[in-house]
Amino acid sequence: MRWLEAAARLASRARAQSCPNPAVGCILLKDARPIGRGWTQEGGRPHAEAMALKLVGEGASGATAYVTLEPCAHRSDRGSACADLLVEAGVARVVIGAQDPDPRTAGEGIARLRAAGIEASLLPSPQVENSLAGYFTRARHGRPFVTLKLAMSLDGCIALADGSSQWITGEEARAHVHSRRAMNDAILVGGATWRQDRPRLDVRLDGLQDRSPRRVLLTRGIPPDGVKVINDPAQIAALGDVQYLYVEGGAGAAASFLSADLVDRLEIYRAPILLGKGMPALGDIGLQSLAAAHGRWQNVESRQLGSDSFTAYRRTRQEA
Amino acid sequence: MRWLEAAARLASRARAQSCPNPAVGCILLKDARPIGRGWTQEGGRPHAEAMALKLVGEGASGATAYVTLEPCAHRSDRGSACADLLVEAGVARVVIGAQDPDPRTAGEGIARLRAAGIEASLLPSPQVENSLAGYFTRARHGRPFVTLKLAMSLDGCIALADGSSQWITGEEARAHVHSRRAMNDAILVGGATWRQDRPRLDVRLDGLQDRSPRRVLLTRGIPPDGVKVINDPAQIAALGDVQYLYVEGGAGAAASFLSADLVDRLEIYRAPILLGKGMPALGDIGLQSLAAAHGRWQNVESRQLGSDSFTAYRRTRQEA
Repeated sequence: MRWLEAAARLASRARAQSCPNPAVGCILLKDARPIGRGWTQEGGRPHAEAMALKLVGEGASGATAYVTLEPCAHRSDRGSACADLLVEAGVARVVIGAQDPDPRTAGEGIARLRAAGIEASLLPSPQVENSLAGYFTRARHGRPFVTLKLAMSLDGCIALADGSSQWITGEEARAHVHSRRAMNDAILVGGATWRQDRPRLDVRLDGLQDRSPRRVLLTRGIPPDGVKVINDPAQIAALGDVQYLYVEGGAGAAASFLSADLVDRLEIYRAPILLGKGMPALGDIGLQSLAAAHGRWQNVESRQLGSDSFTAYRRTRQEA
Repeated sequence: MRWLEAAARLASRARAQSCPNPAVGCILLKDARPIGRGWTQEGGRPHAEAMALKLVGEGASGATAYVTLEPCAHRSDRGSACADLLVEAGVARVVIGAQDPDPRTAGEGIARLRAAGIEASLLPSPQVENSLAGYFTRARHGRPFVTLKLAMSLDGCIALADGSSQWITGEEARAHVHSRRAMNDAILVGGATWRQDRPRLDVRLDGLQDRSPRRVLLTRGIPPDGVKVINDPAQIAALGDVQYLYVEGGAGAAASFLSADLVDRLEIYRAPILLGKGMPALGDIGLQSLAAAHGRWQNVESRQLGSDSFTAYRRTRQEA
């Protein structure tokens, strides 16, 4: 199991870089030692298995491959099928974190390994599942995995009543936001935020500047130049090559996504300040009762960022 | 130092029981072992030192006494001065956590010990300071130590728009609130909360039912029977025998105390739910700028209570 978890961590290097392919990690083991590793390369190729096998060469014979997603069974003009590569390399065993929902593979990768006499087993885990959240959300629900970010005061305000919001959180929290931007394929803000703040929405961290995601605007108003516009949250389904979407606000856009039940993860930054009569973090989300509010979110991460806190919640109830 | 911290923990048994006296803890040590301990008894007497010395009897000769507050120097008709009791018992050394601001003692207790040849030293610490917060706040600012409790959703709402608030938080958080009530001499709510919820404001925990604090109402309306009423937060100064005041809401009362700069500690219970267009936790607190909101609160405690979180903040800026 821990090798699959390590492979899932490797896969995170490919997050927001691997579209249209899933971000996969692979570790080759021989005599209980890792001899090679790989992860999906920019643009989706080479695949993780191809990268690891190429590094190891003939050493792969008799090895065990830990791979987060079922090796692909379809040849493309961009490379051979990974199941075939593993067979050719002579690996003895393949441990797989999740079956590939892609109909061109969907069990066929495992079948091909087994047909060649390789011991192939599935060993699912939450870590692997998380590392493929964007790919699985696309496959299961036909839309990107959506993270909603909120930065607020202890009493849930995202700005003063006059709209001023620079700054609620401190430098460390803001740098963390930039690192999160780099983990998403696209960033979305609402029209009011766009007009008020003219946010750059880029990654201003040394070495990550070229990881700035595409910008998407949710508005019914006139689209500005050079920015992709949608006028309803449901239209995120049609955003090409976006597995991970980061919704940065403001209150209206956040409420729209929550009302449409299109938020998979909440990331809340909280500064130790009270604002009183400020701008609330959310608009109307169409809630009918307190009971309906419960049981939707589970805390999955908490940390301190300077004097601010960061807490992440995952959706616990699946959409219909 | 760790014996003073242990004595401060002992003192917490006396919290909200010791009025009009401070809640003090005392540990007697001989040959590096604790031989006796005491804490202020209900109603303020016997004092911690008197209790510990009585338990130990002649064994106190040559011992070291760790006591959170300077032993009193004034004889009263309710008992001898503790400085005299320590001299009579023949202790060799007294380690003291804080000087007593009571003008009848204020250094006189230490002087009397030293005059009798006892080694007496002051060793201040945050733990001891915290354990005497109510007493010191009374002495320094002429008012009780005020804790403001807020129970809210992730987006800072304390109720739905229609006022329904049962329940935001779960059972464990609500039990924790009851245990906090028992640590305060009085509970205060605002008039709107009183009229809407008719809260019992008592301690409904096995074994602590008789620790239910006095109830105080902040209202400019007609006072109900059997409840103490004030119509301005500043009037808490005149509440007799209250070292610790627990402000339970609602939004109006909370904002009144914050506007008046009369909150020493924030205790926030947060349920993993989003309410959207609900009732905000606070009303207007008179804030002029974001800069003015910063630097006032420091996180001093965080814990999980079931699926809810509890976070406490202490005031970092002293009132003028």
